[in-house]
Amino acid sequence: MFTRNQDMSEERSLGSRVIRFSDFRWEGIEPAPYKEAGVDWSAVTRQLLLGPDEDAPFHLRYFEVEPGGYTTYERHEHQHVVVVLRGKGEVRLGDSWESVNYGDVVYVAPNEPHQLRASGDEPFGFFCIVRADRDPAVPL
Amino acid sequence: MFTRNQDMSEERSLGSRVIRFSDFRWEGIEPAPYKEAGVDWSAVTRQLLLGPDEDAPFHLRYFEVEPGGYTTYERHEHQHVVVVLRGKGEVRLGDSWESVNYGDVVYVAPNEPHQLRASGDEPFGFFCIVRADRDPAVPL
Repeated sequence: MFTRNQDMSEERSLGSRVIRFSDFRWEGIEPAPYKEAGVDWSAVTRQLLLGPDEDAPFHLRYFEVEPGGYTTYERHEHQHVVVVLRGKGEVRLGDSWESVNYGDVVYVAPNEPHQLRASGDEPFGFFCIVRADRDPAVPL
Repeated sequence: MFTRNQDMSEERSLGSRVIRFSDFRWEGIEPAPYKEAGVDWSAVTRQLLLGPDEDAPFHLRYFEVEPGGYTTYERHEHQHVVVVLRGKGEVRLGDSWESVNYGDVVYVAPNEPHQLRASGDEPFGFFCIVRADRDPAVPL
């Protein structure tokens, strides 16, 4: 599912380590586009913090949504566990939207249609934990 | 590995939901002792946020260490991914201790001897993500 960047893997230590945080970035990790073009989303970046290079059965990612931005409305069999780290947002679970704030944890059950969007004046940032061997998302 | 609390499971919704955060507690989740007695640790609580009831392949827990407290020095085959949420602490990875602060991510590789301790005047709190099917820790 995840295409490993061989060059990057060779440069990074894959052993035990501390990955330093500063201003919503982590040492050695570059923000990347959230997703390919051709699917509806706006103003979202992703930082892949841990998992694929470590051969872990789960991956830790951090997503940041600029004011006005949103993720794709989609569903998939794999579960999402989200932890809000920054700003204010709203999460759609099926037909209802709920506001979420710092520290809130969101569980997205298998096949639940879902979407996240920023609702404040500052970026809305959250961790998202997923299983490593997961099915592709289906845009809705 | 994890003993499910049947009564609690029946009361909780296991579907998609937001688990509200307030003052380092989460709605409906009670802090529990970190570990059984008879192993060396001090002043640590755990909150099991998500995973076992949802049949997820990973579990999200939050641990809080009071000033002066520490977790067991131990090792195991399964990996740890830690994210610091509160206070200051130190993490031992093998023979070296490193200071960690808010937002820092710690990766503990398979079989790495490790320990965490609070190093400030306020509680040191962190998320810890582990695989669901994991081996027991060996105290060192």
